[in-house]
Amino acid sequence: MISFFLGSFSDFPIIKNGVRILKDSGVPFKGHVCSAHRSPKLLVQKIEELDKSGCKVYIAAAGGAAHLAGVIASHTIRPVIGVPISGKLNGLDSLLSTSQMPKGVAVATVGVDNFENAVYLAMQMLSLSCEKAERWLKQHRENMVKGVIESDDKLREEIECM
Amino acid sequence: MISFFLGSFSDFPIIKNGVRILKDSGVPFKGHVCSAHRSPKLLVQKIEELDKSGCKVYIAAAGGAAHLAGVIASHTIRPVIGVPISGKLNGLDSLLSTSQMPKGVAVATVGVDNFENAVYLAMQMLSLSCEKAERWLKQHRENMVKGVIESDDKLREEIECM
Amino acid sequence: MISFFLGSFSDFPIIKNGVRILKDSGVPFKGHVCSAHRSPKLLVQKIEELDKSGCKVYIAAAGGAAHLAGVIASHTIRPVIGVPISGKLNGLDSLLSTSQMPKGVAVATVGVDNFENAVYLAMQMLSLSCEKAERWLKQHRENMVKGVIESDDKLREEIECM
Amino acid sequence: MISFFLGSFSDFPIIKNGVRILKDSGVPFKGHVCSAHRSPKLLVQKIEELDKSGCKVYIAAAGGAAHLAGVIASHTIRPVIGVPISGKLNGLDSLLSTSQMPKGVAVATVGVDNFENAVYLAMQMLSLSCEKAERWLKQHRENMVKGVIESDDKLREEIECM
Amino acid sequence: MISFFLGSFSDFPIIKNGVRILKDSGVPFKGHVCSAHRSPKLLVQKIEELDKSGCKVYIAAAGGAAHLAGVIASHTIRPVIGVPISGKLNGLDSLLSTSQMPKGVAVATVGVDNFENAVYLAMQMLSLSCEKAERWLKQHRENMVKGVIESDDKLREEIECM
Amino acid sequence: MISFFLGSFSDFPIIKNGVRILKDSGVPFKGHVCSAHRSPKLLVQKIEELDKSGCKVYIAAAGGAAHLAGVIASHTIRPVIGVPISGKLNGLDSLLSTSQMPKGVAVATVGVDNFENAVYLAMQMLSLSCEKAERWLKQHRENMVKGVIESDDKLREEIECM
Amino acid sequence: MISFFLGSFSDFPIIKNGVRILKDSGVPFKGHVCSAHRSPKLLVQKIEELDKSGCKVYIAAAGGAAHLAGVIASHTIRPVIGVPISGKLNGLDSLLSTSQMPKGVAVATVGVDNFENAVYLAMQMLSLSCEKAERWLKQHRENMVKGVIESDDKLREEIECM
Amino acid sequence: MISFFLGSFSDFPIIKNGVRILKDSGVPFKGHVCSAHRSPKLLVQKIEELDKSGCKVYIAAAGGAAHLAGVIASHTIRPVIGVPISGKLNGLDSLLSTSQMPKGVAVATVGVDNFENAVYLAMQMLSLSCEKAERWLKQHRENMVKGVIESDDKLREEIECM
Repeated sequence: MISFFLGSFSDFPIIKNGVRILKDSGVPFKGHVCSAHRSPKLLVQKIEELDKSGCKVYIAAAGGAAHLAGVIASHTIRPVIGVPISGKLNGLDSLLSTSQMPKGVAVATVGVDNFENAVYLAMQMLSLSCEKAERWLKQHRENMVKGVIESDDKLREEIECM
Repeated sequence: MISFFLGSFSDFPIIKNGVRILKDSGVPFKGHVCSAHRSPKLLVQKIEELDKSGCKVYIAAAGGAAHLAGVIASHTIRPVIGVPISGKLNGLDSLLSTSQMPKGVAVATVGVDNFENAVYLAMQMLSLSCEKAERWLKQHRENMVKGVIESDDKLREEIECM
Repeated sequence: MISFFLGSFSDFPIIKNGVRILKDSGVPFKGHVCSAHRSPKLLVQKIEELDKSGCKVYIAAAGGAAHLAGVIASHTIRPVIGVPISGKLNGLDSLLSTSQMPKGVAVATVGVDNFENAVYLAMQMLSLSCEKAERWLKQHRENMVKGVIESDDKLREEIECM
Repeated sequence: MISFFLGSFSDFPIIKNGVRILKDSGVPFKGHVCSAHRSPKLLVQKIEELDKSGCKVYIAAAGGAAHLAGVIASHTIRPVIGVPISGKLNGLDSLLSTSQMPKGVAVATVGVDNFENAVYLAMQMLSLSCEKAERWLKQHRENMVKGVIESDDKLREEIECM
Repeated sequence: MISFFLGSFSDFPIIKNGVRILKDSGVPFKGHVCSAHRSPKLLVQKIEELDKSGCKVYIAAAGGAAHLAGVIASHTIRPVIGVPISGKLNGLDSLLSTSQMPKGVAVATVGVDNFENAVYLAMQMLSLSCEKAERWLKQHRENMVKGVIESDDKLREEIECM
Repeated sequence: MISFFLGSFSDFPIIKNGVRILKDSGVPFKGHVCSAHRSPKLLVQKIEELDKSGCKVYIAAAGGAAHLAGVIASHTIRPVIGVPISGKLNGLDSLLSTSQMPKGVAVATVGVDNFENAVYLAMQMLSLSCEKAERWLKQHRENMVKGVIESDDKLREEIECM
Repeated sequence: MISFFLGSFSDFPIIKNGVRILKDSGVPFKGHVCSAHRSPKLLVQKIEELDKSGCKVYIAAAGGAAHLAGVIASHTIRPVIGVPISGKLNGLDSLLSTSQMPKGVAVATVGVDNFENAVYLAMQMLSLSCEKAERWLKQHRENMVKGVIESDDKLREEIECM
Repeated sequence: MISFFLGSFSDFPIIKNGVRILKDSGVPFKGHVCSAHRSPKLLVQKIEELDKSGCKVYIAAAGGAAHLAGVIASHTIRPVIGVPISGKLNGLDSLLSTSQMPKGVAVATVGVDNFENAVYLAMQMLSLSCEKAERWLKQHRENMVKGVIESDDKLREEIECM
């Protein structure tokens, strides 16, 4: 099972498309809004429950001084993927707050606002022991190549019509 | 009482001078090494004990994805002062990780590696209800002016000898 | 009493919500527009009067080369909270101008445009010797947790409707 | 099996300590020097062979326009961990080059020069289907807490001797 | 012949004006959408074919962790011009990912979103052995001076009407 | 006489208000569009003519790799004021390109897009030998204080109406 | 007369060479150590005295949240040149704190640590009404060209000996 | 023929290794020290002479507000390669000053301090009409792959000896 956490509900539009990919994948998942700063005890309680109920990978999306992924990583030994959400400083603050973890407790950071890649990365982790996830990933890769080829055709048309 | 936390003992040389000022001030204080990531439960336990034993102001010095001040601030309503410690990215990462807190939970951030100013700020907070701290601060300000005047004389000498 | 200063009236919309929180708190406060650069003597005069009339905490919100908080801090021993206001360089300039104070004179810097956190921080300072402020802060923390739980429910609904 | 790639042998001193942790863990691993730019065909050939021989997780450490992790991620569906190595621009260039991947192909980025965390993250991924890795991680976490407590004692001594 | 590559079709509006200049120049060119990450094998295949069919200069426009130009440069000895496309971090990420190549494999980087300059630079390279390109460039330079003189007149009118 | 140069007419709206202040001041001035890169010879010719006809201060406003002020400064010994104009990278590029001149040839850099301050600075330079400019500046300073006092009243009203 | 201010005597080595150029120029000047934050009243007092005694140009060198030039500029209508001094953040903080002044009060900012250019700029301002300064500047420009030609010869030798 | 320009002789150690590669290549080249700011007329004169004597590619290495490449590019239609040299701001200033050219006049920017890549890029341009240069480049590419394979062996030894 994958669990994702959102530091603030107001960032939901940024991750919506990625959540849809997660839902479409068929992998069991749970979504939570929980803040490392505004509800720290609730967060720890949730992680402990999720760990017990077999959660395998965590995704945490947060902006600003984005501590959410780091705090989760300090309370579980499951891999934690951090998604820096952009804000006042274009996401530079959240990218650094998420990635620059001290030696000993790691966060797998993806690009700014790139919740989709967090989902792909979670699937890659699951696929190490799940053939269904592996098939899904292979299909995704094939679809991407097809998408590229279609775009290539579109570009050619655009150039001709210039 | 003032409590300060250091995320990693290896940063002690950076804050040493500030700790000395704190010690010389005569205000009761306690120093701790405790990491938000490597020992998260110990940290919460310590804050709860310190809160009960009457700690009035917290200072937290940490580098990289510096979550220490933010995590403390999420567990106490006492004011928390954050000192970003410089590292791989010259302290830009720790400055942003410390200051860019979400609305609702604040950290009083001082300059990169500037533990001295965290001590002065803590004294300013205490001085709101402590005359001794107020006198100490006034003395400090007078000393600074004297120091400036001495430096001014030294500069004049340097220029003459050129 | 809390006094806040705004470097330029044009930034009022950014801090408006925080001012409302301050007003709703019931703590006596005064708001001023005064610029460190355009009206330096007026500023010093105001600080001296406020200091005498018992102002306990200062908040200063300014953008660009944001010197307002630093200048106030150089004229009073009361704690000064600086709010960097975003502008041409996304607030990186005002954040650095506010936080990177020299050793000896501190500014308690909060996040870019985060006047709300300046208010919470001011209340935390007052609460060291004011039970009413302490109660207000505890209530605020409880409300935040409730807000998180409500958002968590909303997210669940959003996911189900996908 | 874990495979790590180093873009340039000159960066070996930066990752040496992390490689030692990997070696001490007892998990089978292979180390390679291979550049995405100077030997692109060799790189693809190696990944294809490693994929076939059962490599489960890739780690790629590179500096500057650090494409190594991204290129590996484009050729395998196994999870790829990127370690930005610092250089002329303090690692800001390599951090952004490693983390800001396009939607569809993810790299799990850790902090600048933090190969140790790449190793821990790889172990966390393996532990999803390997109890030995899980036990190793739990031990590591316990050791970290012990290390924090020892540092805390050392700080106390330092303060007393001041 | 000049070949240009676009990492993602969604960036076409940014480069459209530059493509028009290329088309108007009369120099033979081909445009492709091909991603270094989503279709890595297709990319190598295309470069090899283009190299054989006499492509002289490559232009690659990509955003984020912009590896496109670097990957092309690693597979051909023809000069490769990189155009960093702006995105979440204003193009700072793509500028650094494109320019900070390791010693041995170079990318000729132009300014953020400045596909026009990539075209002029490609023409400058071709003009080393093509008089037609040289004439075109000289004409372009003369037109620029005329444009400047016209703007100068417009400014004078604007000032008078103030 | 003051001469200002604009690198690109498209930036005129950014400096318009400052040009109006210059016009209203009554000081003789001339405005030019001339690019350091697109019309380098024309630029040098203009500077030489202006120098001869008694131009005392130059202002140069340009964006991106903003070389305009630097190039002018290399061709005259009159003081040159540089105004970095914001663009793709929020003006960080133009600020650095304008201010970081080599030892020996200086540019007096003002803030990003702040043509108004370039005008005030030019007047300050002229006022060293022109009483009229001095009076104008004193009047400007008094007006600023009045403006601050009016804003202060407006804020008070806003707060009361909350 | 030129007056320069240094925020902290510890930065004297950085400006020493520039002070020597100033001294060698023969122009009357005065040097002061005075901090905008540690001795704010002394600073204002000094500026008022200097203004009365005919100081024509101010130079202010300071690091971190470098307010010195801005504070001086707010108290005089004489032109003020700001020299950002590098420190924890490589001078980015002091550059932004010095240059990004609000509309109405300008600082003529030169490059990081470039006190020499502040001196040249001050001489350029004085030369508007002082022929001696003008001659000095022309001589300086000629010397620079000679220096370039000498370096050019040295390079040729170096290449030959390779 | 290739001509390279160095803005300041003090940067020669940074480019020395690249100059050696250029010398060893056997391609005719000339090296110059000439500053865009300190000797602007000499620079234009040199470019005009070099253009006439058949110079095909220019390389310009400069730091700070690095205008050298841009100024050369404005005076010739030959391709100009810019090498940003690092200094006070780690080369971020010179990188932006070199790359962010306005539409119409391009500079082919390579990485910070990476004169070697400027040489390779120049050879790639020459190779469009010079078989000898093409052979040299192919040899260089083969050597790089050999170097990678040797490093790979060294790494293996290092790991075994741990």
